[in-house]
Parts: sequence; structure tokens; C-alpha cells
Amino acid sequence: MQRARRPGPSVRTRVVEHTVDSEVAREDRLVTEEPLEIRVRAGRLEPRRAWVTMRTPGHDFELAAGWLVNEGLAAPDAVTQVAYCTDADLTPDQELNVVTVSLAAGTDLPHRHVAASAGSSACGVCGKDSVADALATRTAPPWSGRRPDAEVVRRLPEALRERQVLFARTGGVHAAGLADADGTILVVREDVGRHNAVDKVVGSRVLAGESPAAACLVLSGRVGFELVQKAAASGIGAIVAVGAPTSLAAQLAGEAGIHLWGFTSAGRSVNYT
Amino acid sequence: MQRARRPGPSVRTRVVEHTVDSEVAREDRLVTEEPLEIRVRAGRLEPRRAWVTMRTPGHDFELAAGWLVNEGLAAPDAVTQVAYCTDADLTPDQELNVVTVSLAAGTDLPHRHVAASAGSSACGVCGKDSVADALATRTAPPWSGRRPDAEVVRRLPEALRERQVLFARTGGVHAAGLADADGTILVVREDVGRHNAVDKVVGSRVLAGESPAAACLVLSGRVGFELVQKAAASGIGAIVAVGAPTSLAAQLAGEAGIHLWGFTSAGRSVNYT
Repeated sequence: MQRARRPGPSVRTRVVEHTVDSEVAREDRLVTEEPLEIRVRAGRLEPRRAWVTMRTPGHDFELAAGWLVNEGLAAPDAVTQVAYCTDADLTPDQELNVVTVSLAAGTDLPHRHVAASAGSSACGVCGKDSVADALATRTAPPWSGRRPDAEVVRRLPEALRERQVLFARTGGVHAAGLADADGTILVVREDVGRHNAVDKVVGSRVLAGESPAAACLVLSGRVGFELVQKAAASGIGAIVAVGAPTSLAAQLAGEAGIHLWGFTSAGRSVNYT
Repeated sequence: MQRARRPGPSVRTRVVEHTVDSEVAREDRLVTEEPLEIRVRAGRLEPRRAWVTMRTPGHDFELAAGWLVNEGLAAPDAVTQVAYCTDADLTPDQELNVVTVSLAAGTDLPHRHVAASAGSSACGVCGKDSVADALATRTAPPWSGRRPDAEVVRRLPEALRERQVLFARTGGVHAAGLADADGTILVVREDVGRHNAVDKVVGSRVLAGESPAAACLVLSGRVGFELVQKAAASGIGAIVAVGAPTSLAAQLAGEAGIHLWGFTSAGRSVNYT
């Protein structure tokens, strides 16, 4: 059977750049965006489709494993195998966009990700509920080690940026990184989706057999509620972001005991907790 | 019954700003993030939950109506009413986060938004499939009028920025706007979610009884596949973005006949189609 070429993280394209007094045709690079379907096989059951996300190809196994852990759907040590799917009904193009995560026998997959259920229930549709739900479903214990101080915090965006290979090439991706309390970067991943980048760094630890808990999560962009929820699920101690946090992100970080820093640059950072 | 106060688009908070040689406690503003549940009532049927999104409160009816149209779930003229939900089982806090959209009797609500279905089907999991699906489900005809030229394009980000009230206050939101071919801004909306901002501008036209089709959609950020999909669904002629497009966004724009401009500022813009 014909095997598809793995899509790269960026693709070449021809563009025309218009300035005030010129039009120049040149080559440019675009960040690759492709769908990824994550299937989950719990024990010996048939795999079920759990999620489809638009992502930048690369580190797909980490994305799938990290997503499951960050969404509170599986404990890190429940992930036994991750593989591209080779169903006979998939075309070669599709095979590299479908990943199956196998979970240890006896792992129950919660039914939280059903978007279109009957509309009678009033559960959880305000910020207060969202925060309570996030705290109730967090599986990792809160971080109890050291966290970066303000001086270390201000160094982190630059340390992240130095490792943003794809951003330098395309300008179209976000990055996430894990760091220790002294500001040493442990892992950096880039993706067209901010949330995917966070899933990938956590997944990289999970697949290495290490705990995803870390002193600090560094983000190239803004901090919404769902990113803090992921950080809480994997036991992160602090979030350091280049952009702004939202109201609900700050509230959840406060209640989850996560230090939250926004608008961070070499010159300043704003602490919200 | 106690009536909840409508949450504002930003909230006050106390922060500590750390610079190289100072720590200053001060007041700051965070963009408000709250969940919104969209329910859909087709004819006389009971309303069904269709989606839950994190959004910035304000223009909620526009968001709900625009989301339905942009996702190809309803034609603009099928929307007959939008209202906050007043179910007895909702708390006052929750009521303002649940919106019901009523569609004309006889409107079939497609079952596209079911995230967690059985995993046996191999439909649509590569970029080529995604583009084909998006083209197949577009409901509006392609834009046939004039589109902005390069000079108008370069003026649009500044025109959008002047109307980004919430960004100026919080730094934490994206904006979308509709403009005509001469660069006149028709409507601007801001939201913590880039996709929500696009749904809101389209919804504002739908609720005004006007066609959502416009010469140009202006975006404060990047352009992913799903944003082009929304633009195609509502008959947009051109997308002008401050940030970078993705590979799949450029591909879909090309096939849908939408002019795509990225990295746009007063000095330059890059044309991808």
C-alpha cells in the first residue's frame, strides 16, 4: 500500500507583497494546518473517536497523549501505546491524521466530551460552575515545589522565543514550554493551536514516562480559562504568559493555587494571583 | 425571582507589576470570559443544546445567530427569534449564559456538531477532505461584487483598531469587522475568542435582517482554516488579517474564491491568493 509522506510543519507558497510603492512576488512559508483525529482504545474495546482538532503536524503522539491527560480523561500512567491508524478504510493521506491512544485495561473513559447532548440540563453554564468543575476534575495534586520568582519569570519569554523555530519561519504559530523554578526550559513545542502546544509539551513528558507536573508553563500568547484548566490537570505550579489573562483564567488560577503572570517581557511582568 | 446583573465585557482586578527595580500594586482590567450555551429550537420541537463556547459577554444574540449561520447550520432568514433562557432549573447567574435560537418551522438542524461519535468512519480527516467538506456545505453564493484593492487593504487594520475599545482597556481580546470595498467599516465586534468575534459580526447583520455577505472581513489576528470556512459560509469576498494565515486557510480561500491578505499593516500586506 502506498505510504503518504509525513506533512512537514510548514509549506512553501508563492505570494505577492504589496507595499506603498511596490508589488513584489516572492516565496513565503505558511504554517501547516491539518486535522488530527484522536481515537481512544480502552483495554480490549474497539477504538472510539474522542476528538478532532486542527493542528500543525509533528509530535502528534504527544498531542494525543497530552490532550487526554490535560482534559482529565486519563492518568499519565494509563497511556500504554500511541500509534498512527492503519485501518483499511483510511487513505494514505488520512492515515497520518488519525492517532489511536491505547489505555490500560480497566481504564474508564469518562463521557465528558459529548458536545451535542439533550438541552435539558442546566449543569455548569456560568463561570463559577466552570471553576468548580475544573477543580473537581483535576487529577494531579497541586504543585508543592519551588516556583520561579519575578526575575526568573521575566527571562522566560526570551528563552521560549529562542526555541520557536517554526514561528521564526512562518509567524503563524504559538509556543508552549515547561520550565523549572530556575528558568531552565525543559521542553518547547509549537502549534497553530495554542491549546495543542500545551497538550504537546505535557504529552512529551507523559510519553517519556515522566510526570507532566512542572514548576512553570510558559506561553507565547494569552491565557484563557481552558489553558489554566489544562495546567491544573497536570500539576503545573506557575503560568508565565506573554499576553493577557482572562477574568476566568485568573479566577481559576487563584483557586487552583497556580501563580499567574501576564504581559511578561524582559522588562516587566504582571502578577495576577 | 432575583435577576442577575449582566456581566460586563471587562472586570477590575488588583495586580502587582514587577519590573527590573520595582514592585507596584495597582488596579488592572481583565477581559471577561464566561461560558455561553447555545440552544436551538427548530419549529415546535424542544430546544436542544447545540454548543457551549467560552466568550466575552455582550452581543450574545449576535454570537448565537452568527454561529449557526457561519457553521452552515441555518440560513440567515431561518432565524426567527433569539432569547435568553428562563428555565426554572437555571440560576440567575446561568440565565444570562444560555441563549435559545428559534428557527422557522420546517428547518432541519443538521447533525454535524457531534464531537464524540463512534470511531469507525474515516470521513474527512485530511486537509483535502476538510476543504472539500467546507466547499460542499457553504450555503451562501460566492461574493460577486467589488473587493478592496491593496491600498484600501493596508488602511483596514488601523480602521479596525480605532474601534477596538475593549482591547485598549484589557489587551486580551481579538476583533473582527466587516467592511465594504472602499474600506468603510460596517461593524466591529470584540471577543476573547477569535472565532466568536467573527460569529458576532455576521450575527449583527443577520439580526438586522441584512445579508451577512460583505466585500471584506477584517481580523486582528491570524487566519486559520475555520475562519475561512465561516467567511465562505456567509459569502465574504476578501479576508484582511493582521497576522499570518495557515496552509489550509490559504488553500480553502483559493478554492472558495476569497481574496486572502495577511501580515497587513499601514506599510504592507501580503496576498496569498
